[in-house]
Amino acid sequence: MLGGIEAGGTKCVVAVADDDLSIIAQATIPTTAPVETFASILSFFEQAQNDHGSGLTAIGVASFGPVGVDPASSSYGEILETPKLAWRGVSYQDRLSHFGVPVVVDTDVNGAALAEQIFAATEVSDTLAYVTVGTGIGVGVVQAGKLLSGFSHFEMGHILPRRAEGDTFEGLCPSHDDCLEGLASGPAIKARWGQSLSDLSADHPAHDIEADYLAQLVHSITLMHAPHKIVLGGGVMKAEGLIERIRAKAERYLAGYMKHAALDTGLQNYITKPKLGDKSGIIGALALARASDAGE
Amino acid sequence: MLGGIEAGGTKCVVAVADDDLSIIAQATIPTTAPVETFASILSFFEQAQNDHGSGLTAIGVASFGPVGVDPASSSYGEILETPKLAWRGVSYQDRLSHFGVPVVVDTDVNGAALAEQIFAATEVSDTLAYVTVGTGIGVGVVQAGKLLSGFSHFEMGHILPRRAEGDTFEGLCPSHDDCLEGLASGPAIKARWGQSLSDLSADHPAHDIEADYLAQLVHSITLMHAPHKIVLGGGVMKAEGLIERIRAKAERYLAGYMKHAALDTGLQNYITKPKLGDKSGIIGALALARASDAGE
Repeated sequence: MLGGIEAGGTKCVVAVADDDLSIIAQATIPTTAPVETFASILSFFEQAQNDHGSGLTAIGVASFGPVGVDPASSSYGEILETPKLAWRGVSYQDRLSHFGVPVVVDTDVNGAALAEQIFAATEVSDTLAYVTVGTGIGVGVVQAGKLLSGFSHFEMGHILPRRAEGDTFEGLCPSHDDCLEGLASGPAIKARWGQSLSDLSADHPAHDIEADYLAQLVHSITLMHAPHKIVLGGGVMKAEGLIERIRAKAERYLAGYMKHAALDTGLQNYITKPKLGDKSGIIGALALARASDAGE
Repeated sequence: MLGGIEAGGTKCVVAVADDDLSIIAQATIPTTAPVETFASILSFFEQAQNDHGSGLTAIGVASFGPVGVDPASSSYGEILETPKLAWRGVSYQDRLSHFGVPVVVDTDVNGAALAEQIFAATEVSDTLAYVTVGTGIGVGVVQAGKLLSGFSHFEMGHILPRRAEGDTFEGLCPSHDDCLEGLASGPAIKARWGQSLSDLSADHPAHDIEADYLAQLVHSITLMHAPHKIVLGGGVMKAEGLIERIRAKAERYLAGYMKHAALDTGLQNYITKPKLGDKSGIIGALALARASDAGE
């Protein structure tokens, strides 16, 4: 039985699943102090083991970041310089050692990317990029079933887009001011217009400004990773009509320069919403566990 | 004996080498009509086989692009929509089939990336990005000895940088006008100031403008690939002081957001010039041949 934890800044989703990733039991636990949160996580898994008469074989964690994702590094599975001070230095390996099974840790967006590739009906050899636009902006890239990373997980949310026409907002990224996350994350939208995108009328300029920034991200990802599909998820993407605006603007940015069947006219198949909806994160955590289980 | 071809828009460098990539014989052949160019390439390799009493075991090609780099695709090894019309549709596999050995084809910049990783004394598991700034701007990324690609080789030269202060040049990319290549390639510098960067005095604003654009590329590559090292090569990089200016500006763009030993203070070890100088391309072609030879 696989264990999964989608660890977010405000809540953790925990689940156990069969090897085909179908969920047997699931719960939501508030993210408070680490000692309290892990006590609840441990008791969920123990209860699940008792209820289903089956032991955990591996635990996958799709975590908020920054988090150590390099298994060769001493900081693997450790939460790094997060603004959530109580969580700095917390090690998933240590906190979950109780079960004596492999603990695989990656970022929440990487987990979601893995889950989307498994269920998005793309070829397993294909490259898929998953973007989340919410409190922050993050991107995970999966290629041939493996998550890509370099010396760290990627931080594509901090690229520097060109200013959308009419946007003079100073941006709110503490490191880069008006980087993509500083201009186009959920908090940036609220700081600029006092409301979320979904609450602004369809003719409000916010929609085109947001779509412009996210289309620039799509353009950069295409040039820098050439994925076969880009999945756009997260709370901000729920705004009606946003994905259509992004497709139209991305097509203009790409300007037909790269040619491939993946870049279909209108980008309907290239830029999509998550197949798994809000479940990408927890299913991604379970998929991380499965990958370890298979000795991958 | 390994065969290598570095195929450029104006000339092809051909070489044969031992398995340790040390070059036995080398020649330069003008890139004219394909039939003529390949006749010269074939006769170079035949002569080399005779001279050294040893047959070719594989041929690596590091080619100008766009070129098919996916071995699973029917266009593998084929030159795609290049402005050099006579070369469109030319297949390296077909033209070199005479030797009956594997022909491995990748882009010139990918070849150089591979060669630099082999000789740059980084860990083989590390990620290295190689950037060429010349007639065009291209980037190749090697990870754990393998070149990365998605549905195509990458096209990072076409990202959209923010305008450097004081730069009003319209850009000359036929697809994107003022993308990075349209603003910062060798031809863009000549079109804007009538001279190459190396010929402009050290206090000319061109140096800071160029460094700004290339620092933005470094910033994007860092966020999107997190490489352990970025090597900057190509003709434009020969301008004195340019790499120092890029390091200083890249450090400002990065703003300390990503933390890793690879990002050393001053970025002296992170941003470097090619170890192999102008030989990266041909040694990369030979390294491509060697990778095939080893059944990798």
